[in-house]
Amino acid sequence: MEFSSKLLARAVDEIAQLPGIGKRSALRLALHLLKQPKDNTYHLAQALTQFRDQINFCQKCHNLSDQPVCEICANTNRDATVICVVEDIRDVMAIENTRQFKGYYHVLGGIISPMDGVGPNDLTLESLVEKIKQNTIKEVIFALSATVEADTTNFYMYKILAPFAVKITAISRGIPIGDELEYTDEVTLGRSILTRIPYEDALKE
Amino acid sequence: MEFSSKLLARAVDEIAQLPGIGKRSALRLALHLLKQPKDNTYHLAQALTQFRDQINFCQKCHNLSDQPVCEICANTNRDATVICVVEDIRDVMAIENTRQFKGYYHVLGGIISPMDGVGPNDLTLESLVEKIKQNTIKEVIFALSATVEADTTNFYMYKILAPFAVKITAISRGIPIGDELEYTDEVTLGRSILTRIPYEDALKE
Repeated sequence: MEFSSKLLARAVDEIAQLPGIGKRSALRLALHLLKQPKDNTYHLAQALTQFRDQINFCQKCHNLSDQPVCEICANTNRDATVICVVEDIRDVMAIENTRQFKGYYHVLGGIISPMDGVGPNDLTLESLVEKIKQNTIKEVIFALSATVEADTTNFYMYKILAPFAVKITAISRGIPIGDELEYTDEVTLGRSILTRIPYEDALKE
Repeated sequence: MEFSSKLLARAVDEIAQLPGIGKRSALRLALHLLKQPKDNTYHLAQALTQFRDQINFCQKCHNLSDQPVCEICANTNRDATVICVVEDIRDVMAIENTRQFKGYYHVLGGIISPMDGVGPNDLTLESLVEKIKQNTIKEVIFALSATVEADTTNFYMYKILAPFAVKITAISRGIPIGDELEYTDEVTLGRSILTRIPYEDALKE
């Protein structure tokens, strides 16, 4: 695409660097900003810059936070014996929404993915081991996605944590509640048979 | 969505103001910026601000331009007797890509759309009439989209320009080249029969 304006070309190029936004969408967004008051663009630019500049990570769980310690970690009413390992803030939000978990979190900040250049050292694994060493945690729950990269990360964490006297669990996988069996994909269905649980346990849920 | 950080919440809110981007996508984009070097965010913010601040409109055709007069209008080799009326810069780019038009453009800056609060006074219609009054233009081509709003705008322009001694044409509508008849929608097919042209004319294309 050739533009009649370098300012426009640069704005489009920058917007199109964002994941999932092509040149055409970027042009549409730039033209949208042009139709809005200038303040809208200033506010957007300022919000992005301040966010990137000033955002903190919680010293304890490594979640995004404006404070040195996030609200969840600052809450002393939660169960300090259970820690839930997640990939990023979206997973913390998703699990908090279920209201089923009362322990603390540990945010890895990613998952091992050689394709994206993310190795174990890019994650907050060292800090996780330090926490376990303090001997107050009785259970670590692996709550990553159901992808190959997440499986790799789970296995890597398992190897690191196995020497410690801590129970290691993983969130269950299987047929989503409300789904029909015949429409479930083969892999999920096959696994759900292999990892079947006593019916009495299923009743407890 | 409740966020653990106000900075994140504000960034997500601002991004989600853009058309076609929901809160979930906005969060994804914000987290993407966080994984990139800070400079990426600064460059994006700067490009948007500079674009919105410094962008000019060509004094002649009202297209986006870094100069007072855009490259097309500054080109004296084009045909000054034909003017092509379009909605915005994207349409200028699309028509230029066809290499089938050698006249000048007139960019309306939008189309009449009461739903979006866009009326005739928001468009560059006055400047279009001024151009016609100079009596050098022999033909005005309406090259708007094939939507209801565009039809309204075409009709409004037709009413304004009818008193002047200028030929008014509109780009043809019909079955896209390469499309099969049986898959063409009824309205397009019906219209293409009503607006049929002599076969000798079709041969010239």
